[in-house]
Amino acid sequence: MKEQWRGFKGTHWISDVNVRDFIQNNYTPYDGDSSFLAGPTDATNKLWGDLQKLQHQERAQGGVLDMETEIVSGITAYGPGYISEGSKDLEKVVGLQTDKPLKRAFMPYGGIKMAQEACTTNGYTPNPKFDQIFNEYHKTHNQAVYDAYTPEMRLARKNKILTGLPDTYGRGRIVGDYRRVALYGIDFLVEQKQADLKNCGCGIMVDDVIRQREELADQIKALKAMKVMAQSYGFDISQPASNAREAVQWLYFGYLAAIKTQNGAAMSIGRISTFLDIYINRDIEEGKLTESEAQELIDHLVMKLRMVKFARIPSYQQLFSGDPVWATLEVAGFGMDGRHMVTKSDYRFLHTLENMGPSPEPNLTVLYTSKLPENFRKYAAKISVDTSSIQYENDDVMRVEWGDDYSICCCVSATQTGKEMQFFGARANLAKALLYAMNGGIDVKTRMQVGPKLPKITSEYLDYDEVMANYDIVLEWLASLYVNVLNLIQYMHDKYYYEAAEMALIDTDVRRTFATGIAGFSHVVDSLSAIKYAKVKPVRDADGISIDFEIEGDFPRYGNDDDRADEIAVWLLKNFLTKLKKHHTYRDSEPTTSILTITSNVVYGKATGALPDGRKAGEPLAPGANPSYGAEKSGLLASLNSVAKLPYEYALDGISNTQTIAPDALGHNEDERVNNLVNVLDGYFSKGAHHLNVNVFGTEKLLDAMEHPEKPEYANFTIRVSGYAVKFIDLTREQQMDVISRTCHKAM
Amino acid sequence: MKEQWRGFKGTHWISDVNVRDFIQNNYTPYDGDSSFLAGPTDATNKLWGDLQKLQHQERAQGGVLDMETEIVSGITAYGPGYISEGSKDLEKVVGLQTDKPLKRAFMPYGGIKMAQEACTTNGYTPNPKFDQIFNEYHKTHNQAVYDAYTPEMRLARKNKILTGLPDTYGRGRIVGDYRRVALYGIDFLVEQKQADLKNCGCGIMVDDVIRQREELADQIKALKAMKVMAQSYGFDISQPASNAREAVQWLYFGYLAAIKTQNGAAMSIGRISTFLDIYINRDIEEGKLTESEAQELIDHLVMKLRMVKFARIPSYQQLFSGDPVWATLEVAGFGMDGRHMVTKSDYRFLHTLENMGPSPEPNLTVLYTSKLPENFRKYAAKISVDTSSIQYENDDVMRVEWGDDYSICCCVSATQTGKEMQFFGARANLAKALLYAMNGGIDVKTRMQVGPKLPKITSEYLDYDEVMANYDIVLEWLASLYVNVLNLIQYMHDKYYYEAAEMALIDTDVRRTFATGIAGFSHVVDSLSAIKYAKVKPVRDADGISIDFEIEGDFPRYGNDDDRADEIAVWLLKNFLTKLKKHHTYRDSEPTTSILTITSNVVYGKATGALPDGRKAGEPLAPGANPSYGAEKSGLLASLNSVAKLPYEYALDGISNTQTIAPDALGHNEDERVNNLVNVLDGYFSKGAHHLNVNVFGTEKLLDAMEHPEKPEYANFTIRVSGYAVKFIDLTREQQMDVISRTCHKAM
Repeated sequence: MKEQWRGFKGTHWISDVNVRDFIQNNYTPYDGDSSFLAGPTDATNKLWGDLQKLQHQERAQGGVLDMETEIVSGITAYGPGYISEGSKDLEKVVGLQTDKPLKRAFMPYGGIKMAQEACTTNGYTPNPKFDQIFNEYHKTHNQAVYDAYTPEMRLARKNKILTGLPDTYGRGRIVGDYRRVALYGIDFLVEQKQADLKNCGCGIMVDDVIRQREELADQIKALKAMKVMAQSYGFDISQPASNAREAVQWLYFGYLAAIKTQNGAAMSIGRISTFLDIYINRDIEEGKLTESEAQELIDHLVMKLRMVKFARIPSYQQLFSGDPVWATLEVAGFGMDGRHMVTKSDYRFLHTLENMGPSPEPNLTVLYTSKLPENFRKYAAKISVDTSSIQYENDDVMRVEWGDDYSICCCVSATQTGKEMQFFGARANLAKALLYAMNGGIDVKTRMQVGPKLPKITSEYLDYDEVMANYDIVLEWLASLYVNVLNLIQYMHDKYYYEAAEMALIDTDVRRTFATGIAGFSHVVDSLSAIKYAKVKPVRDADGISIDFEIEGDFPRYGNDDDRADEIAVWLLKNFLTKLKKHHTYRDSEPTTSILTITSNVVYGKATGALPDGRKAGEPLAPGANPSYGAEKSGLLASLNSVAKLPYEYALDGISNTQTIAPDALGHNEDERVNNLVNVLDGYFSKGAHHLNVNVFGTEKLLDAMEHPEKPEYANFTIRVSGYAVKFIDLTREQQMDVISRTCHKAM
Repeated sequence: MKEQWRGFKGTHWISDVNVRDFIQNNYTPYDGDSSFLAGPTDATNKLWGDLQKLQHQERAQGGVLDMETEIVSGITAYGPGYISEGSKDLEKVVGLQTDKPLKRAFMPYGGIKMAQEACTTNGYTPNPKFDQIFNEYHKTHNQAVYDAYTPEMRLARKNKILTGLPDTYGRGRIVGDYRRVALYGIDFLVEQKQADLKNCGCGIMVDDVIRQREELADQIKALKAMKVMAQSYGFDISQPASNAREAVQWLYFGYLAAIKTQNGAAMSIGRISTFLDIYINRDIEEGKLTESEAQELIDHLVMKLRMVKFARIPSYQQLFSGDPVWATLEVAGFGMDGRHMVTKSDYRFLHTLENMGPSPEPNLTVLYTSKLPENFRKYAAKISVDTSSIQYENDDVMRVEWGDDYSICCCVSATQTGKEMQFFGARANLAKALLYAMNGGIDVKTRMQVGPKLPKITSEYLDYDEVMANYDIVLEWLASLYVNVLNLIQYMHDKYYYEAAEMALIDTDVRRTFATGIAGFSHVVDSLSAIKYAKVKPVRDADGISIDFEIEGDFPRYGNDDDRADEIAVWLLKNFLTKLKKHHTYRDSEPTTSILTITSNVVYGKATGALPDGRKAGEPLAPGANPSYGAEKSGLLASLNSVAKLPYEYALDGISNTQTIAPDALGHNEDERVNNLVNVLDGYFSKGAHHLNVNVFGTEKLLDAMEHPEKPEYANFTIRVSGYAVKFIDLTREQQMDVISRTCHKAM
């Protein structure tokens, strides 16, 4: 028993890396209310004030404050950096991605062209030497993927039937178990990985064993580099953290190593709240820490997470709008042993939205169940009503699949912390696929033969069975192509952009999921429903391509708790996943899917022709698993009921639902709103639904913010979009318009 | 039919890449004598004179004339370079590895440390920026291999039971079909590879298909780069060569791309003579070329091959002494259709040794059979008698395995030209393994437990069955470890140092052999024979380790045509290959083995303790399949008969035999010597032997050359060592002593 572990209980976690065992043996569930919380300290106010000035300056400069052009990012690429040199002693948690706050690192491994374009788009010129280094001497991920792509893959990509593929950026969605750095210190982790390397393979050098051995060697190097990085800030992280401040700092150093080496779309920090609470509790009990100091630690960690930035290119920002990084962080949840896992620190993390105002990052996620203490559920609801900055996920369905120590690795996707990684793979546009089924595989927009060469449907009115037969062929083709595109991308990512720092903090014997995704979900459902229950007459051009649809009669729509439509939704999900599962997946990973589109619903919509549900060509698709705009005619609860029917087991990568409720619809005062929101959440999740983004504001506020972004109250005005939060004024006007056109429920 | 192909016959080679078909349809066998040959032109004399001055200067500077420190070698890394700017118009074949003659390129991909050490050892300092680039940004082959090695592998390597592994240099032994560049031009080759890429895999992206697709993409890039390189010399190689000079030049550009990108131990140019002869013939028939001009082309190509250099480190040079590159080039051979394949150009290539004097490179190899025209056999024998610069390989045994268009990819190893590549893997020291069998797996020299932990043999006299039982266990272990070390090395070589330029000139659907090798062969045979037929008493130290052996009585030795010893030799070969074949091999390559040690027999010997055959600790092992020094008591023919008993089918990677005959033993005048040597070769190869290095000189000449290297007649004094030729004065004194101590047959 090391001195740093004084007072901690349990045995398993001492001899083996087992953070969950440590947590379960040592955490203190908290049933009380939020009255214990402390406001921001002077240091917090000063630092956050400095940072807001920088953020203001960043926005004034068009979104980027500063960029690196000379140094390739790496764990030890920089010396120490601080929010400001003058106030660095105020920072209770230190560590920047580069040498200056909000300065974006140069990260070429995902693709040198992208790294260069990200600079030049923003007026920076990367050192020309990198051109030779990362084209001639070292191939980057993007180049490798394009080297191996088939013409069919390029065509599918170009026609946006497959979109958002991680071939021009890091795949992300790998959550290192950063808590391990705090609990064990680097030396023990190195020893464990060295033992794993020793025991990797029986001596028969098949490709998989060789690859694994090299990966382990790279992980060990990354761990050792973390020590060097921490040393530059004056900390020796070779041994376990001995108090709360060290625990926060050690953990953050682990995360910092990740974001210095990877620019994945999602760089979650994971489920750290209950863990850190144990250290804070011990310090408070030992009289070494006050509540104010505890809150300050959390505030300062969160401030760091609000500073994470990557250099992006315009086409990336169209998909992932508002500069998100998905520094997703979970609170609450329920233990396998029947105890809830709410701690005071879960309050403290949510409280950062009060101490420092709303913010899209970290992507605060409440692992929800109606069994959580009422006090906590109400506090979370209050934060939602006040800030629209948090999301909810159903711990009752996730716990069955992932246990009680999972982290959300992106928007909504769960992975077992430290035991699992994900091969992320963006999404397939099933709405476009439906048009291919009608148009003989020809893309309405580009007129290219993209899908299977089927006979075009020529009947005056669409016949449900005929459409479904063709759709089946197209989905079969699409599932195969999609899985194989991803196999190729993931292979190259491992080869050219392996996440050594993150994987160093994950078990060697890792479980791998293979995450696909569905776009255009609600539109396919409603279109099929229209064909089935109404009469749909395609408007065809001279080439026989259906360019629009005339709908005669009414039909049930997804989002109204109408089984006729909702059954089609369930069929679509099950059917597509079943087709995906037929195929070989890279490293024998487990295929999953999601119904989740981020802000990319706008881009996807632009590339998608008119649909039989009445949606016009080019209009945004509904985001994620949301019912289509205007389809929800029966109020919030009916809409939620429709989404809740989708079986999570078939979409383990997540089913994202984003809803906006007018404050007045929710209640006449804050108490009423809080109580009603708790009821909504309890009801929704008790039906087995997976996820809910909650926005509480009216359309008027959005319109005003769009027109007057300079008003101080909108500087940090945060809204939940599909799977993440964003500052509304950071969205493009087009995306603001999309958000405004989404359903704002004015009635329950 | 392209204009460049005017007069050529055949059809298959026109629509598909099929150089063999082109050759068979168009070559002209030549039965005449050497009287047609032309002497060197003034241009040849001038250029060769210049080059000899540079070589002299190189030797005076300790072996290296100049080194690159700023530019990373690559196909297009340099502009044009010439032997001397002043006489560049004299060069009928142009193209240097770098910008200056004999300047060694900086080639870091095999291992940055080696590339740096090669420079610093010779007093050059590579630009320090490469340290960061090839350690931080780009991992090199050597680092990757060491990342993945197991402790057991490191131990075996350190104890030199496995030696010469290509983990610190390029594996080499891949012969691009450089003739393709001349016959087809680059554009057609690119088209073919693009078609292959299109048809690579059915869309199911398993790892093998992804890897193959990326490799094809890299091959296509290499082909395009060759065009750019040729352009810098003023040649457009996009289309086929239209005459002999272009054919030689186009072909050489293909080879130049290989030696600009790879520093493999062996960089053979392959079987090019009969091919080039077709172009020369046509030009002569068209009245566009004289014999003198034809010879000049061949002389100038050979001059270029004499200039190939790589930067090496001292430990490499211990294994491969005398700066060899194995620019192996074949002449003669027999066709599947019953025609011999000797052409005038085969004479011309051998004639370069007369026009420009003896030389170790290119490694001229006669594909021998007694069915070759007598004139040619005599001419080759004459060249051997005069220059000791050529080697002979048995076309009758190789043709059965590899057809009639194979090339020798290193010293003696055949591969089908353009259809095959080899995973080279150096060798295992079976003599050391025999000591492990006696000493419980402990290395006599280092006292480490390296092999399996067996009981040490303790009997006063060694019991044959007891030794054999232990030896079987050790060989089983060694074969497994060896194959798996190589699996790992080859995987990393493909990953970090893929031979895109060479593989671009080889069929996509390539056959891969997995070449292992045996060292200490004759000593194991004689030791086992001693244990079996005499009485062997180990001298053991306090630890029970056998450090020497006392032999009582006589025993049969390998090299005397005595079946009792020779049967052990056959058993040893068959047994080890059978054990090797049990194991998984990388990319399902076909395991082969060789009995072949290069000059590394000296290093291997140093690391090997005393043996039961009477060889003392540290003494050199006999090279290759040679009988041990002093073992041959029955004359040259008996020695050759013993080696000829080794079945080639079990050592498809080659069985190297090097013999030195005193001129007087061979005959009293040149005619007698030539006739006798032809008889020796006919007899030896008719018995199914594989290879013979022929040296014709006496020990006195060696002693004199060792003591007086400055004498002009020794400047180019070339001798055949195990599998290659070397300038005697370029060997270390230790290796010169080894050569001197080898048997020089003074009787037939």
